[in-house]
Amino acid sequence: MGVFISLDFESSQPIYLQLIHQIIEGIAKKELQPGDPLPSVRSLAQDIGINLHTVNKAYQQLKQDGFLQIHRQKGVVIRPEGIPKADNIYKEQVQQKLRPLIAESICKDLSKEEFLTLCQTIYHDFQIGGRNDD
Amino acid sequence: MGVFISLDFESSQPIYLQLIHQIIEGIAKKELQPGDPLPSVRSLAQDIGINLHTVNKAYQQLKQDGFLQIHRQKGVVIRPEGIPKADNIYKEQVQQKLRPLIAESICKDLSKEEFLTLCQTIYHDFQIGGRNDD
Repeated sequence: MGVFISLDFESSQPIYLQLIHQIIEGIAKKELQPGDPLPSVRSLAQDIGINLHTVNKAYQQLKQDGFLQIHRQKGVVIRPEGIPKADNIYKEQVQQKLRPLIAESICKDLSKEEFLTLCQTIYHDFQIGGRNDD
Repeated sequence: MGVFISLDFESSQPIYLQLIHQIIEGIAKKELQPGDPLPSVRSLAQDIGINLHTVNKAYQQLKQDGFLQIHRQKGVVIRPEGIPKADNIYKEQVQQKLRPLIAESICKDLSKEEFLTLCQTIYHDFQIGGRNDD
């Protein structure tokens, strides 16, 4: 149960963002389910050897985006009511993030079909990654 | 000829990144062609009312990624030999950027079909946006 956090300290991507992405991937793969507990800020920071503030920044962002609940007593859990469903505002945000990526791909002569295949491959990964061993 | 730069100073996205994205979109839409000149760092900074260093950061990144050439005499031009084609390293980079976006969409119950439709819509925009009025 739970999710294995692996960070790349050589990456140009900030550590708090890597942490956010890994927790979200854990939820997408159903390794983390609604109500599942996460380590406290302090213990996660200690376990993976990063700053308290880095973990806190990630947790706060995940809370704000509806992935986590943070209770003073119960601790940190994946939002028990489930993750808020995609609405039109969310879809626009996705498009805003996709847009520069697609523009760049067009410039570099990556065809639409190739781009969509890259997406499909990732969806495939997440399906295989989704474990149901309980 | 050229590309109209419009920046959102309220956005959480850094200005230099917005500038990079708009120039890349201009190339994707063929509003900017290989060899086309861009304003100097100084004059672009002045025209849109932003810091010299912000423009410089965007130009340097675009140069590094093969979109621009910067000559001391000839000035800044879209890479005359064309933009480097997508290779396997580039495709992996695209997947690394798509991955958290797709993970998040799965968490939020956005279906694969809906996600791919969002991609298709953007491709459609770029086709319509591509002007051939010379």
